[in-house]
Amino acid sequence: MTITAEQVKQLREQTGAGMMECKKALSEAAGDVAKAIELLRKAGRAQADKRSGRTASEGLIDAYIHAGSRMGVLIEVNCETDFVARTDEFARLVRDLALQACAAGADYVRREDVPPARVEKEREIYRAQLENSGKPANVLDKIVEGKLAKFYSEVCLLEQPFIKDDKMTVQDLVQRASAKTGENIIVRRFVRFQLGQE
Amino acid sequence: MTITAEQVKQLREQTGAGMMECKKALSEAAGDVAKAIELLRKAGRAQADKRSGRTASEGLIDAYIHAGSRMGVLIEVNCETDFVARTDEFARLVRDLALQACAAGADYVRREDVPPARVEKEREIYRAQLENSGKPANVLDKIVEGKLAKFYSEVCLLEQPFIKDDKMTVQDLVQRASAKTGENIIVRRFVRFQLGQE
Repeated sequence: MTITAEQVKQLREQTGAGMMECKKALSEAAGDVAKAIELLRKAGRAQADKRSGRTASEGLIDAYIHAGSRMGVLIEVNCETDFVARTDEFARLVRDLALQACAAGADYVRREDVPPARVEKEREIYRAQLENSGKPANVLDKIVEGKLAKFYSEVCLLEQPFIKDDKMTVQDLVQRASAKTGENIIVRRFVRFQLGQE
Repeated sequence: MTITAEQVKQLREQTGAGMMECKKALSEAAGDVAKAIELLRKAGRAQADKRSGRTASEGLIDAYIHAGSRMGVLIEVNCETDFVARTDEFARLVRDLALQACAAGADYVRREDVPPARVEKEREIYRAQLENSGKPANVLDKIVEGKLAKFYSEVCLLEQPFIKDDKMTVQDLVQRASAKTGENIIVRRFVRFQLGQE
């Protein structure tokens, strides 16, 4: 197991432990960073509050609080360089995305994020709605998939129509910004709080 | 199974379905609200996007974005009346709590929110640190519990020293506001995003 200087450097940054200690911990953990941190902590060599970071990425964190302060969104959008992150263009995009998630009430960024159990439950409900329709099975399947597509366009931020221009989706908006800046732009995560709701 | 008028009213608000339909669904579901909503949806009588709400509570949702937009917090704090929620006093409290959670890096509101597995992992690490200390078991237990108390005061928002006055805890700050307004004030939830971290 070869431990690279880069791995040692990252572990030092994450734990505050010495170089040789980090190297030793990484060797003992066979390169597993989480395990190495645990070893260092057990040896009393790493602080509890240092977090395991992932490879740094640039971007912005922004929030949008709806008038009346009964609803709000916190969002993280990533880009490739600090240069782009600091442009007005990028800041405007992030602000629009936070506003969109708040006003249009998205639950997920993209359809891959919807839990399979929720998708299955939706399918089950659509099938039950059509139970006595007398339509053939292949037609029913098509209708169910159509309803599911509509469901995705309601709960997934990137599939929603953009509230400021419903001729495009939110994904189109992100792609447009990506083309303009020449950087990959990723909506990484958001949360939405509504007063008194789960 | 008796279904009260109040239960029917709440289900109507949540689903937009008619009164008799709600009553029937509640009877069939033996009073189980989630089940009743599912029945109504299967019958095509409830909208998919209506959410199950809990009993309304007042308060504010606020956000704090750290300078540079690389860290931010979204927070919900509840009180009992809209009157208190709209006071400057309450708004200041919520703002201070968001700032605190952001700057002091809390992970949870209160110690009951820390996952048992994380507590057990901490205990295990403290015991490993003391393994060769030669101290008797009862002394070791005390030291471990002491370290755990320190851990809680680092990761639980309410147990942290208040950043604007470290002679009091955040819990003290909330209690003070509670005494002043005469209302129960509850920090319900918060999330903290840091750029490029999980």
